[in-house]
Amino acid sequence: LNQQLEALPTTIFTVMSALAREHNAINLGQGFPDTEGPQDIVQTAVNALLDGQNQYAPLTGLPELRQAVAESNRRFQGLNINPDTEVVVTSGATEALAASLMALIEPGDEVVLIEPLYDTYLPVVLQLGGVPRLVRLEHPDWTLPRQALADAFSARTKAILLNTPMNPTGKVFTHDELSFIAGLLREHDAYALCDEVYEHLTFGAKHISLMTLPGMRERCIRIGSAGKSFSMTGWKVGYVTAPAPIASVIAKAHQNLVFATAPNLQRAVAAGLRKDTDYFTQIAADFAGKRDLLSDGLRKLGLDVLPCHGSYFVIADISPLARGEDDMTFAKTLTIEAGVATIPASAFYSQLNGTPPAHLLRFAFCKQEQVLRDALSRIETWQ
Amino acid sequence: LNQQLEALPTTIFTVMSALAREHNAINLGQGFPDTEGPQDIVQTAVNALLDGQNQYAPLTGLPELRQAVAESNRRFQGLNINPDTEVVVTSGATEALAASLMALIEPGDEVVLIEPLYDTYLPVVLQLGGVPRLVRLEHPDWTLPRQALADAFSARTKAILLNTPMNPTGKVFTHDELSFIAGLLREHDAYALCDEVYEHLTFGAKHISLMTLPGMRERCIRIGSAGKSFSMTGWKVGYVTAPAPIASVIAKAHQNLVFATAPNLQRAVAAGLRKDTDYFTQIAADFAGKRDLLSDGLRKLGLDVLPCHGSYFVIADISPLARGEDDMTFAKTLTIEAGVATIPASAFYSQLNGTPPAHLLRFAFCKQEQVLRDALSRIETWQ
Ligand SMILES: CSCCC(=O)C(=O)O
Ligand SMILES: CSCCC(=O)C(=O)O
Repeated sequence: LNQQLEALPTTIFTVMSALAREHNAINLGQGFPDTEGPQDIVQTAVNALLDGQNQYAPLTGLPELRQAVAESNRRFQGLNINPDTEVVVTSGATEALAASLMALIEPGDEVVLIEPLYDTYLPVVLQLGGVPRLVRLEHPDWTLPRQALADAFSARTKAILLNTPMNPTGKVFTHDELSFIAGLLREHDAYALCDEVYEHLTFGAKHISLMTLPGMRERCIRIGSAGKSFSMTGWKVGYVTAPAPIASVIAKAHQNLVFATAPNLQRAVAAGLRKDTDYFTQIAADFAGKRDLLSDGLRKLGLDVLPCHGSYFVIADISPLARGEDDMTFAKTLTIEAGVATIPASAFYSQLNGTPPAHLLRFAFCKQEQVLRDALSRIETWQ
Repeated sequence: LNQQLEALPTTIFTVMSALAREHNAINLGQGFPDTEGPQDIVQTAVNALLDGQNQYAPLTGLPELRQAVAESNRRFQGLNINPDTEVVVTSGATEALAASLMALIEPGDEVVLIEPLYDTYLPVVLQLGGVPRLVRLEHPDWTLPRQALADAFSARTKAILLNTPMNPTGKVFTHDELSFIAGLLREHDAYALCDEVYEHLTFGAKHISLMTLPGMRERCIRIGSAGKSFSMTGWKVGYVTAPAPIASVIAKAHQNLVFATAPNLQRAVAAGLRKDTDYFTQIAADFAGKRDLLSDGLRKLGLDVLPCHGSYFVIADISPLARGEDDMTFAKTLTIEAGVATIPASAFYSQLNGTPPAHLLRFAFCKQEQVLRDALSRIETWQ
C-alpha cells in the first residue's frame, strides 16, 4: 500500500471527537456549530430535492451557484469574477484545497506554508511531490516573521498557502502583512492558494482577500465554504475563485476527484450567498459574542488567551492547568476527567520544523452559549 | 501549472452534454436517468435535512449507512463485512476510485487496465505515477483476451482495475473469466479495484463480485454507487468495501480529499440499501426493457448492436450510418443534424495502446421509453 498515506495519522478531529463521545464530554474540538444554519436555506435544499434536482450537476457547478459566488466576490471584496470561467464548485473546501494544489504543483515545486496549519495542507503537498517550506508564526501574538517568510521563498517557489481568517489561531492578516506577502509573490512570480473559509467570521478586524491587492488578481486562488458561512459543515459545498486559466485546470482535477456536487445543496448555497448583508453582519456578531464568552471564561480560570479576530477558534496557554503535561496528554486528561474536549495546538505543527509548542490548546467557540458556560464550569470544577 | 492535468481534455460527458443542450438534442450521452429515483428515499433525505442532520458526518460515513452497506454485501454477494472497519463512504464512486488508487499505488507500480475504460481511470493512475498496462477487449463480443491479460501481469503489478458490469460495453464478466483473473491475482500477489457501480443493473446475467472468489476476500476493493443503484446520480454518495487494513488507508486518502459526505444523503442511501429485494429486481427489469427497446430500434435502423448484459449503456456499430466519418465526428453530426447525442466509444480508449476502433458509439438507455422512441425516430428521419 502507499507508505505515505499508511503512515498518516487519523485526523486529530476524528480522534478527539471519538474520545469526546466515549466520555460524554462537551466537544470544543472539531469545529462545527451545534445549532442549525438558516432554516430558509434548509428549505431551499428540501424544495430542490422534491423538485427533481437529483441528477448530475454540471462539472464546475450549477450556473446559479457560480453566479452567486461571483456576486459575493463583488459585494464583499469588490472583485470582478466571471461566473462561467472563474468559479469551480467543489465538495467542500477540503476538496477545493486538494484540487487546487493538484492544479498548481509539479513534483519538486516548493510551497510556502505558515504554521500552525490546518491538518490536510502538509500531507497533500507531500503526496503531490511538493517541497514544503515552513514558516512559523510567533506566539503569543501570532506575529508574521517577515524575514523568515522572505527567506522561505526561492526561485523554485510555486505557491504560498495562506489561510486568513486563520485556523487554528484566529489571526486575521492585516493589509500590511498581505502587502508584504504580495510583494514576495510578485518578486518570485508565485501563486497564492487562499483558504478564506472563515471570510465572514471576523470580529473587529476586516477580512481582506489577498486577491484584491495590486497584481494579485492573476496570482490568487480563493477558497470559500458554505459549511462555515452558513453553519452547515456537513453539506460539504465549497467554491474556488481563480483566474480562468487556473480555474480550468482545477476543474480537471475536480473531474477526476469527485466530478460534481449534490445539486440540491448547491441551489441552497446559492440562496445563502444572496442573503442580505445583515445576515453576514449578524453571524459575525453572534460568533464574536461566543468568542468573548469563552475567552473571558478561560481568563477567569487563570489562562492566557491568545488574540483571536476571526474563525471558530481561540487558543489558550494551558500551562497553569496542565501540571507539566504536554498539550496532547492534557487534551486527553481534560476530555476524560473534566468532560471537555479540545484540540492540542501541536497537531497543527509539522515535525519537520523544530519542536512545536506543547502548552497551547485550541478551543472551538462555535457552540451555544449555555454549552460554552457548561464547559467552563466543568473545567472550573475539575481544576 | 501541472502539465499532466493541463493537458487533460475536458471529459467527453461534459463536451457532449453541452453540445446536446446547444442543439436541443436528446441526450443519450452522459449516463443519468431522466426519471427520479424512489420518492421514499428522497423523503428520507428531506426529513434528515429538516431534522438537523447538517453538520459533519463521521469521516468513514454514518454508522447506519456503513451497516446498510455491510448488509447489502451479505444479501447480494454473501460477503461478511465489518461495518466499522471495512466500509468507507465517499462522495461518489469517482472519489472512491481516486481514494482507492491513492491507497494502493506508489510511483512505479503497474496497474492493469481493461479497455474500453471509464475516463477517469487512466489519468488518475498516471497522476499517481502508476504505470498502466492496457489490455483491450475484443469486439464485437467483448471477449477477454486471456493470454494478453496474463502477459500484462508482472512482478511489478500492484493491481487490476476491473469494472463489471462494465461501462461502456455492458459486459458482465462471467464466473469463468473472474476465476481466470483471480488466478492471476493470486499468482502475482496483486489487488483488484472492483468498480461495481452497476451491480444491480444486469439483464439475464448474474453479477458476481470478484471478492466472492477463493482467496479474493483479502485482495479486493469493491466500489458501489447510490447514484446508479437508486437513480440519483447527482447525490454523489459512493461506498467502498475493503479488508480493514486497506480500508483504513483509503479512509486516510478520503480524509484529505473530501473528509465526509452530506449526512442527509447518507441517511437516505442507507434506507435505499435496505429496500426489499423486489426493488432491485424491478429496477433491473425496467432497465432491461429500456435496453431492449433501444437495441431493437437500432437494429431496425440497420446497425449491429453489440452484446449488453448490464449497465446503462449499449454500443452499436455505426458504420452503415456514418458515411466514413469517425465516431467522434459522427457523434457530433448525429447531435447537430439528427438531434441525438451519444458518446464516441473511442473516448474510452487510450492513445497509448494502438489505434482505437472508430466505428462504435455508446448509447445510454437510462431514459424514459418515449424519449428512447423519439431518439430512434429522429435518427430514422435524419438517415
Ligand atoms: C473537517 S473536520 C475539522 C473541522 C475544522 O475545520 C476544524 O476543526 O479545524
Ligand atoms: C460523471 S459523468 C459520466 C456518467 C457516466 O458514468 C457515464 O456516462 O459513463
